[in-house]
Amino acid sequence: MPALANKVYFNYGGQGPLPTPSLEAIQRAWSTIQELGPFSEAVFPYAERTITELRQRLAPWLGVPPRRLAFTENVSSGCVLPLWGLPWRQNDQLLISDAEHPGVVAACCELAHRHGMGLASLPVQDLLGDPASTKATVLERLETALTPQTRLVVLSHLLWNTGQVMPIPEVAALLESRTPRPWLLVDAAQSFGSLPMDRAADAADIYACTGHKWSCGPEGLGVVAVSERLLAEGRPTLIGWRSLSQESQAGSGVHDDARRFEVATSCLPLFAGLLCSLQLLEAQGSAEDRLALIRERSHQLWQGLQASPRWQPLLQVPPSAGLVSFTGRESSLAAPPTRPRSIVTALGQKGVWLRSLETPACLRACTHLVTRASEVDQLLTQLNQLATVA
Amino acid sequence: MPALANKVYFNYGGQGPLPTPSLEAIQRAWSTIQELGPFSEAVFPYAERTITELRQRLAPWLGVPPRRLAFTENVSSGCVLPLWGLPWRQNDQLLISDAEHPGVVAACCELAHRHGMGLASLPVQDLLGDPASTKATVLERLETALTPQTRLVVLSHLLWNTGQVMPIPEVAALLESRTPRPWLLVDAAQSFGSLPMDRAADAADIYACTGHKWSCGPEGLGVVAVSERLLAEGRPTLIGWRSLSQESQAGSGVHDDARRFEVATSCLPLFAGLLCSLQLLEAQGSAEDRLALIRERSHQLWQGLQASPRWQPLLQVPPSAGLVSFTGRESSLAAPPTRPRSIVTALGQKGVWLRSLETPACLRACTHLVTRASEVDQLLTQLNQLATVA
Repeated sequence: MPALANKVYFNYGGQGPLPTPSLEAIQRAWSTIQELGPFSEAVFPYAERTITELRQRLAPWLGVPPRRLAFTENVSSGCVLPLWGLPWRQNDQLLISDAEHPGVVAACCELAHRHGMGLASLPVQDLLGDPASTKATVLERLETALTPQTRLVVLSHLLWNTGQVMPIPEVAALLESRTPRPWLLVDAAQSFGSLPMDRAADAADIYACTGHKWSCGPEGLGVVAVSERLLAEGRPTLIGWRSLSQESQAGSGVHDDARRFEVATSCLPLFAGLLCSLQLLEAQGSAEDRLALIRERSHQLWQGLQASPRWQPLLQVPPSAGLVSFTGRESSLAAPPTRPRSIVTALGQKGVWLRSLETPACLRACTHLVTRASEVDQLLTQLNQLATVA
Repeated sequence: MPALANKVYFNYGGQGPLPTPSLEAIQRAWSTIQELGPFSEAVFPYAERTITELRQRLAPWLGVPPRRLAFTENVSSGCVLPLWGLPWRQNDQLLISDAEHPGVVAACCELAHRHGMGLASLPVQDLLGDPASTKATVLERLETALTPQTRLVVLSHLLWNTGQVMPIPEVAALLESRTPRPWLLVDAAQSFGSLPMDRAADAADIYACTGHKWSCGPEGLGVVAVSERLLAEGRPTLIGWRSLSQESQAGSGVHDDARRFEVATSCLPLFAGLLCSLQLLEAQGSAEDRLALIRERSHQLWQGLQASPRWQPLLQVPPSAGLVSFTGRESSLAAPPTRPRSIVTALGQKGVWLRSLETPACLRACTHLVTRASEVDQLLTQLNQLATVA
């Protein structure tokens, strides 16, 4: 992984490194396309095979049959494309967690504006305790927040800011018991390649992933799993030739599976790259095995921060996954957002990369399978030295 | 261009070959991203610079300021994303030419369904004569077809089936004189890299291009030019962090320029690849110079078909651009669509690639700057031999 050769890297939640074999697979795909095509009967079966192979490989990752998977350019498109096809009515209410990514929130605001719907907030950002109490509180608050008007719940699987894992299957079960049953949109930007996803993805109506973060694929390719209920009751949204059951016939109707949400030409070599990255991850063990490795390092980091006189992790318990957010002990969550940013710059100058967040104002370091114990030590040392200077 | 090394290629209107320098630029971009980032303060200025450089380079191609350009994954997204943000009302009418791509037609049908709008057809596919009479007839028919309910006209710049160029600036002028003034959506899939686009792109409300056809960039990146009127009156549609004026603030509002239609993470290396392909094209001369070269070969092909006892071009005059569609002399436009397809297969087996179309049922060969006179001769020979066998 060339990205890891010259730096100490903790931004897997921003973008993962692209392994050399994946980059080579991308280059090979481009060569094959040029050699066979690029537009020819010789290349079409290769393209179809590459896309189908990736869809089939992803199905067990997401615990759904391939027909429920659509490829998208990124996680935002995966969230919003199916969402815009649902049967909204005026005065429906969208219940959005307070830990969602601004892009998804803004898209929901626009949707609400268009259909004259209301927005409500589900607080989860303040939940910093152990998994059992977090789960209980999320379900309790959800129960309280749901009204007969609630038609959508938006909740990330792994919160991008605090690093907490949300109990998606249990949330889905709670929603299933309601009439009318609200749709469940899960932003899985941080889960694909970091958490076991099968139960959550199967339970959600929209479970949108990107391949360029924890799964270490190329940027520009994501996948969304949609429910059979969504396929039955939703409409297609953006439409292009890839949405159509017969691409040359405008009147042929859209695919009866999730491909109706695929639009038109994508960058095929990226499919080969992501496929290779998935194979590399699979070679490291099951999703559970890999999460255990991720947590070894995130726990090391959490404990180091916990022991530091100058820093403190947001979470009161070791993280459930690889996201570790933290602040200065003297500062609070209300600290000016410029401060975390200047620390990112200072550490970056020393070749150590993490990121700052604005809400809550904090720093965030991610550990992955490839993170070494010595790198975590180095980060802790740098942080403690910086704090002394500051 | 490795794609052209082992075959005789006439599918530039399907997908262009990727020049080796462009592929190398893509690979260099990936290396740079890995070396600097992939997610770090070190890489962000590089990403921003790459995107800005491409936007600025594209502006004169499209005759508009950079603020009117948005990058999209493909031409369909470029057509539909801005379209879905326009202020539609029940009983508005969408007037769609009968030579549009099925993907765009299907998207307009869905839009019409959602808003309770009507669809009408503008016949242009039968126009096979010279540019002056084509222009006059298009404007005459448009005049007839427009009603006070017409709120959108959809017309390609270069028709993908017959190869005729549509008089977009004149169409725009006619629409401008109407109250209410209909929006003009131009599918420019076949024009970017083949025709001078500046006057047409500036005149249209939505002028959507893809980089992977005539401009010989990588697949998965397109650009759309939108009008100032659209920016003023339209709403954003799919939204992601790239749409937002401050990406970390859901409430910050969308960009006041066309970037509001950009959604989220795209494949940055593709921007470097398209930039390189544009530079290679620019080195061949102005848009007019390049079109003249394209037409040298398309006229050669048209004349060869015209002289052939067995084939006839659709157009009665030499083509205005590089698309040459033709049928067998014995067969008619109503010929079974399987026949052109079997000819594509037979020629493909000899390493000569063109494509078939279903409506009208015909074959289509494209000539580009790089097409050699000997290749056109070879195609004509193969076609005449095939016809003898058939």
